[in-house]
Amino acid sequence: MAAQMDPDAVAKAFVEHYYSTFDTNRGGLANLYQDSSMLTFEGQKIQGVQSIVSKLTSLPFQQCQHHISTVDCQPSGPASGMLVFVSGNLLLAGEQHPLKFSQMFHLMPSPQGSFYVQNDIFRLNYA
Amino acid sequence: MAAQMDPDAVAKAFVEHYYSTFDTNRGGLANLYQDSSMLTFEGQKIQGVQSIVSKLTSLPFQQCQHHISTVDCQPSGPASGMLVFVSGNLLLAGEQHPLKFSQMFHLMPSPQGSFYVQNDIFRLNYA
Repeated sequence: MAAQMDPDAVAKAFVEHYYSTFDTNRGGLANLYQDSSMLTFEGQKIQGVQSIVSKLTSLPFQQCQHHISTVDCQPSGPASGMLVFVSGNLLLAGEQHPLKFSQMFHLMPSPQGSFYVQNDIFRLNYA
Repeated sequence: MAAQMDPDAVAKAFVEHYYSTFDTNRGGLANLYQDSSMLTFEGQKIQGVQSIVSKLTSLPFQQCQHHISTVDCQPSGPASGMLVFVSGNLLLAGEQHPLKFSQMFHLMPSPQGSFYVQNDIFRLNYA
């Protein structure tokens, strides 16, 4: 993903890439985080690419499908970061009813001209 | 709110202040934004304190009550910013059923030692 693209297009491309990787090859998410990255998953705070991927690959379901409802983005400041806010549904294998979720990513430019996830906060939206 | 406090405590204090102001004196939210501030409200992009407050005060309901379900926060980088992610319910006057919402704030330190909202993204969580 080139940092020169339209921000909304970059955000949408990132989100599609992130969830298709999550749903087909969760370990591949390691490429999107760095050692400084932070994940808060349902209130649990995790830092660093290895701990984050370890958490995501050990979630208590093997297969899932994310369906995206909305993607919003804003520039985050002088360092050319980007805030991406997602809402959608998550269908776990063997379940009939999807779970609503919201997730935000703070993307920062990488030296390679792409983006990595510096901040990631995930919540299921219960009643 | 002092920037020296525990980040989770600052986030919680900010969120309580933000929504109690929203629910009792919406115009008072002007104190929490600056001219560089950005709001994306249900996909509509708005910039600057005046435009943001104009949008929030002209929403098609007079009275509402926000009920917070979760508050997550992470530091956002070297500029001492803070990312705050909120989920909750919004009850409009005269309605029986609350609406679920998610909202994220990117808070930045102000010269006065407090915080202002640099980024704000709001979404109702429909099915």
